[in-house]
Amino acid sequence: MTHESPNLKTVTAALLVIGEEILSGRTKDANTAYIAAYLTHVGIGLREVRVVADVEDEIVAAVNALRGRYTYVFITGGIGPTHDDVTTDAIAKAFGVGVDVRDDAVEAMRLQYVEEDLTPARLRMARIPDGAALIHNAVSRAPGYMLENVVVMAGVPRIMQVMMDEVMPRLAKGRPMQARTVRIDAAEGDVAPPLAALQAAHPDVQIGSYPFFEHRAFGTYVVLRGTDDARLDSALADLWEVIAKEGFSSSAGDGS
Amino acid sequence: MTHESPNLKTVTAALLVIGEEILSGRTKDANTAYIAAYLTHVGIGLREVRVVADVEDEIVAAVNALRGRYTYVFITGGIGPTHDDVTTDAIAKAFGVGVDVRDDAVEAMRLQYVEEDLTPARLRMARIPDGAALIHNAVSRAPGYMLENVVVMAGVPRIMQVMMDEVMPRLAKGRPMQARTVRIDAAEGDVAPPLAALQAAHPDVQIGSYPFFEHRAFGTYVVLRGTDDARLDSALADLWEVIAKEGFSSSAGDGS
Repeated sequence: MTHESPNLKTVTAALLVIGEEILSGRTKDANTAYIAAYLTHVGIGLREVRVVADVEDEIVAAVNALRGRYTYVFITGGIGPTHDDVTTDAIAKAFGVGVDVRDDAVEAMRLQYVEEDLTPARLRMARIPDGAALIHNAVSRAPGYMLENVVVMAGVPRIMQVMMDEVMPRLAKGRPMQARTVRIDAAEGDVAPPLAALQAAHPDVQIGSYPFFEHRAFGTYVVLRGTDDARLDSALADLWEVIAKEGFSSSAGDGS
Repeated sequence: MTHESPNLKTVTAALLVIGEEILSGRTKDANTAYIAAYLTHVGIGLREVRVVADVEDEIVAAVNALRGRYTYVFITGGIGPTHDDVTTDAIAKAFGVGVDVRDDAVEAMRLQYVEEDLTPARLRMARIPDGAALIHNAVSRAPGYMLENVVVMAGVPRIMQVMMDEVMPRLAKGRPMQARTVRIDAAEGDVAPPLAALQAAHPDVQIGSYPFFEHRAFGTYVVLRGTDDARLDSALADLWEVIAKEGFSSSAGDGS
């Protein structure tokens, strides 16, 4: 199952968060920030995030829209034991495959549950779409799974996190995106013209600018992103030159 | 521009967050949680969130996918002065309308900027798609705008927040979704069967269950959601009955 990518091609991903509780504002989604940072670190470029409700047809539509567009689709939430956990049925429907309680998933759950606790409700968590490979869950044992390029994980953050670690060796990775950040103590509007010129001169480096307002100070974080160290450093050197020429006050740093 | 909805029909929304910095994990998106809670409170049902990069074609595709499906589409980010601010061009392209610096937007910016600071870069923030109505911004004056059912706001949280307040009176609202939360000190797997029965008996109430792990305790928050107080209270009464019958330990409360 392990894919090597010797030429370190671009590997992309979408994240699909299943969660009425996030759409209603009850719960702040912490998984997106974690997964975004994780994927960036390992060399998988997160290109899109969607949050949809626990509604089967919505999930089916989103999975089918995303799985053809990106190398991987990561999904969190909706694989628990209750009636509102509809993700697994949606995945089976999206792929047009069957779904049933599977022995290997039940075996995994026996590490956590005594026989009388393996109720029909809990065995819903052992329902796995046909053809999927399990993702083990050392926290609470009910597994996630991977079907083709779709990775399905729990929504509870600490369970999602062990599942990410567990599935990661099976996935292709590209060259990790690197970032260089410079804080400039000048308004974004004043930084804009030289930054546009810098971007034009370095098309292989992605240049982002983020205004900040901290206490009584304001300014702009400039972030250079790219997969090639030499090109990044070249753009960074030119940025420092621009800063000197414009007379901006500035400092290197990751910023907020 | 104010729409009254005398029969309080369902009013829905999608949120489109423009932000490479969120996809790369550099910045945690705080706007989604704020907007989700705000919309729920005023009676607009947030049904979907998408995060895409600052890439014109991606934004055009997302806007056109969402604006026909929901009453409103809220957009945050990408309307600043720099080269990576491409939201306004994307909106104009999505609607097939022109876009230019507009006098009313420049007038608004004169409240913040002296004439020599109204540089070409800053005047990018006065570019407004044809036919859009401005959304004033008391914080930094560069306006947002609303074009048909699409509301475009800044990504900086405190600016987005004043724009939400500013645009809200123009929007239709439905009956606000109410919630009742009960904390049950029992595993989600044990709560699942009676909860499924409760859901079947109360199809007009949305019943969600959220497992929690706090310190050494674990359990399940059950959230009943609906727009009709009487139906919610009826479902809640039945939930308390179920809890008593099953012998669960529990308490009312909003939970985590």
